[in-house]
Amino acid sequence: MTLYQKLAKRLREHIQHDFYKQGDKLPSVRQLAQEHGVSISTVQEAYRQLEQDQLVEAKPKSGYFVCQRKKDNLPSVSRPPQRPLEVSQWEEVLNMLMNRGSTKGLQLQHAMPDMTSSTLKPLLKTLADLSKHKPELGLSYADIRGSEELRNQLCRLTVASGCQLHPDDLVITSGCQEALSVCIRAVSEPGDIVAIESPSFYGSMQAIKAANLKAMEIPTHPETGISLEALELALDQWPIKAIFVTPTCNNPMGYTMPEDRKEQLYKLAQSYDIAIIEDDVYGDISFQFPRPKTIKSFDTDGRVLLCSSFSKSVAPGLRVGWIAPGRYRDKVTHIKYVSSSMCPVFPQLAIAKFIRQGGYRKHIRQMRQNYEQQRDHLLQVIKAHFPSDTRVSFPDGSFILWVELNPSIDSIKLVERCRKVGVDFAPGPLFSATGKFRNGFRLNYSEQTMEKRENAIKTLAKIIREFHPETIAQKSL
Amino acid sequence: MTLYQKLAKRLREHIQHDFYKQGDKLPSVRQLAQEHGVSISTVQEAYRQLEQDQLVEAKPKSGYFVCQRKKDNLPSVSRPPQRPLEVSQWEEVLNMLMNRGSTKGLQLQHAMPDMTSSTLKPLLKTLADLSKHKPELGLSYADIRGSEELRNQLCRLTVASGCQLHPDDLVITSGCQEALSVCIRAVSEPGDIVAIESPSFYGSMQAIKAANLKAMEIPTHPETGISLEALELALDQWPIKAIFVTPTCNNPMGYTMPEDRKEQLYKLAQSYDIAIIEDDVYGDISFQFPRPKTIKSFDTDGRVLLCSSFSKSVAPGLRVGWIAPGRYRDKVTHIKYVSSSMCPVFPQLAIAKFIRQGGYRKHIRQMRQNYEQQRDHLLQVIKAHFPSDTRVSFPDGSFILWVELNPSIDSIKLVERCRKVGVDFAPGPLFSATGKFRNGFRLNYSEQTMEKRENAIKTLAKIIREFHPETIAQKSL
Ligand SMILES: Cc1ncc(COP(=O)(O)O)c(C=O)c1O
Ligand SMILES: Cc1ncc(COP(=O)(O)O)c(C=O)c1O
Repeated sequence: MTLYQKLAKRLREHIQHDFYKQGDKLPSVRQLAQEHGVSISTVQEAYRQLEQDQLVEAKPKSGYFVCQRKKDNLPSVSRPPQRPLEVSQWEEVLNMLMNRGSTKGLQLQHAMPDMTSSTLKPLLKTLADLSKHKPELGLSYADIRGSEELRNQLCRLTVASGCQLHPDDLVITSGCQEALSVCIRAVSEPGDIVAIESPSFYGSMQAIKAANLKAMEIPTHPETGISLEALELALDQWPIKAIFVTPTCNNPMGYTMPEDRKEQLYKLAQSYDIAIIEDDVYGDISFQFPRPKTIKSFDTDGRVLLCSSFSKSVAPGLRVGWIAPGRYRDKVTHIKYVSSSMCPVFPQLAIAKFIRQGGYRKHIRQMRQNYEQQRDHLLQVIKAHFPSDTRVSFPDGSFILWVELNPSIDSIKLVERCRKVGVDFAPGPLFSATGKFRNGFRLNYSEQTMEKRENAIKTLAKIIREFHPETIAQKSL
Repeated sequence: MTLYQKLAKRLREHIQHDFYKQGDKLPSVRQLAQEHGVSISTVQEAYRQLEQDQLVEAKPKSGYFVCQRKKDNLPSVSRPPQRPLEVSQWEEVLNMLMNRGSTKGLQLQHAMPDMTSSTLKPLLKTLADLSKHKPELGLSYADIRGSEELRNQLCRLTVASGCQLHPDDLVITSGCQEALSVCIRAVSEPGDIVAIESPSFYGSMQAIKAANLKAMEIPTHPETGISLEALELALDQWPIKAIFVTPTCNNPMGYTMPEDRKEQLYKLAQSYDIAIIEDDVYGDISFQFPRPKTIKSFDTDGRVLLCSSFSKSVAPGLRVGWIAPGRYRDKVTHIKYVSSSMCPVFPQLAIAKFIRQGGYRKHIRQMRQNYEQQRDHLLQVIKAHFPSDTRVSFPDGSFILWVELNPSIDSIKLVERCRKVGVDFAPGPLFSATGKFRNGFRLNYSEQTMEKRENAIKTLAKIIREFHPETIAQKSL
């Protein structure tokens, strides 16, 4: 890293951690040069870099200022039909899942984290050591609630999101998917209705389908999440059994519900006496510091079932997830046992040690930094190459982002076309119970190499332009 | 091993593999001495050993003969109530599961295989190598149907049970428990009735409960399995949706349904147009060679969902199971994805290699031999120490055995008492939908050390005698 890059990195971190806030004036070039013992031209180079990344802007004769984050092209608030519906879209989901691992080019499709960071090394070492030196530990049946050592560490970890949990309040699962599936079954009977965000993660919707439930999609705002007003209307009108939300670094929209709205959501559930299933799988890689509180942190009567895993913060292949099931613990334990008995112990022990020895904290700190830069870069290249009527979400955590194209473009057709050239993404209809969001799609930005991403996005942009009504109109002239 | 022990082992193997059949006259002492180049007294010592093990008997003036296997004290045919019932017993099951790993003495309770054999070494080495040299392989999302390499090997493996499968016909699961749970959900709707053996494995019954189904327990014979006659009556009378059976090395009874009865069961399912879920988790450690055919091997129209895992043949901690779902493949894939997404890949790859390189065949050959000897030993010590009115199953595979005590003895009370002295077993009511078999229990005999088992059984016998009506009558005199 050259001097100017180092300085730019430093300034970027200060801005990202709100040391300099939006609209703030930044130190003058001279001041910085003195402070850091570098030349004037080095500082100028650093500022030019940040300008290019749209983090700072130069105002003539006044110096450099932190940019207002541009959120003006956000996706629209969703308007799903206001009645409970059967979930469809399984074939589309399966089609995408079967495509796992087959992409030759850049992986923009799956919600797969970056797993190349050297901060993962201690974890990998522990895994190798366990396999080598204590193989017998991995052979036996073990506690169906999961390793006590891991549950202990989880209690420590979740303090950061405002929770006070006891190891007995936790059940380890095979990833967050099992956690969601178990919780959905634990709070409902076949035929019941569950309220969800719109768009929503397809894995939870398919779990609703498999449990013979109906989904009630609630209008959702791209910055503040599920509309509490619309939710309350729905609760008045329908016998909804549970609310299912991903309020922190939402998949696919990337928003984090403001804390007061989380609390209001909890109060609403309380007044209608229903359960909340809270999916916090991206919570630890929020760009906010300290990380946002969970709805669970407001829970005084055990109605929140908090679900998470290390699939997004560490690696999905480990399949280590967990539930803090509150008052539903006994039912959750039953369904978890029935679903898959116990979970393999090595990954659990390795993660427990990773947390205990501080490796996890270090790793997610690194990941948060990387992902935030990668988000900025992706936003920038999208802005540079996609048609100007494109709307894009502004994720404040995780590594996925939602794009809304001109309403006439069909993302299912688009994805078929793109696959042929080795570019992939997750088409919008997967995130709806009934195949809406046809002009939307989700992109992954966990890839570190800017060049790779830029090339993939340029290819994608070219194909989008082919589908764009303006191009079509021009052609037909 | 001394000379006479070696010879005894040899003869035992010949008997066990039906080279000498029940009632056959064995070679004379002189003949054997000549044939093996050992002394007369060595042969005599070997025969004495086999006599003690009740494998051979001396007839005055005629020489040695293979014993009739004594199956006269078999448990009775079960007589469950002939109507569909809700499954209860979860608290009792949980109580036992929570007890996993806490036994200080001999583990007689859980259906845990012996994992100390050196034949497992190649597998452990592969696991350690994968963790060390290809850690990245274990991190990513992967095929939700499981590793193709493992599915390939499974196709080869299942030829031994009469199946012809294609890798696309298989779905890998998190143990056999997930396989059963997924299949039960795939073939039924909430409220449906499933016919099961009585007694039955508690894990499958609890899965029936969790899927909101009712269980119809069918009378079951300790040697031939589920009564086809009673099953047909039940099928006539109730709208049964599926039959759930463990026809090979049944848990807890140990019987293997004769092949013709397996075929009849399949035909019955065909004529009532319903599904069969076949749990074959112990099939590969049957003492018969070649191993018994599965019901799946008779399946011409895809109505059999075959479930298994490597939990009993290799090690449960690996959590590698699988389904051959026949015509239910799409539904099974959906429910499997929803339940836990993909399975960890290292254990799958390690098992695939273990099979490919012949280690698996070698391992189960060893295990079958050990378990058969250990069964004989357990039967012998039970006979020597338990009250004479005890009935015992005669497992022809696996490492578990069913005991029926005097009807006045309550195995739930017995287990509480025994736990205090560090001896444990699985009480009978766990194996019934509604808490029957109070005077029954299941014992594990996977432990290799004869002395340990003998001591544990003696302790158990002493406590059983305390509970026995004769002792109580004597005391009250
Ligand atoms: C919101 C959300 N919840 C749950 C999951 C499933 O996580 P896991 O891989 O731990 O099962 C995902 C993965 O894509 C997700 O995005
Ligand atoms: C008959 C039967 N089926 C299934 C299972 C569950 O096997 P797994 O540990 O592979 O989930 C067991 C385990 O005890 C069993 O005895």
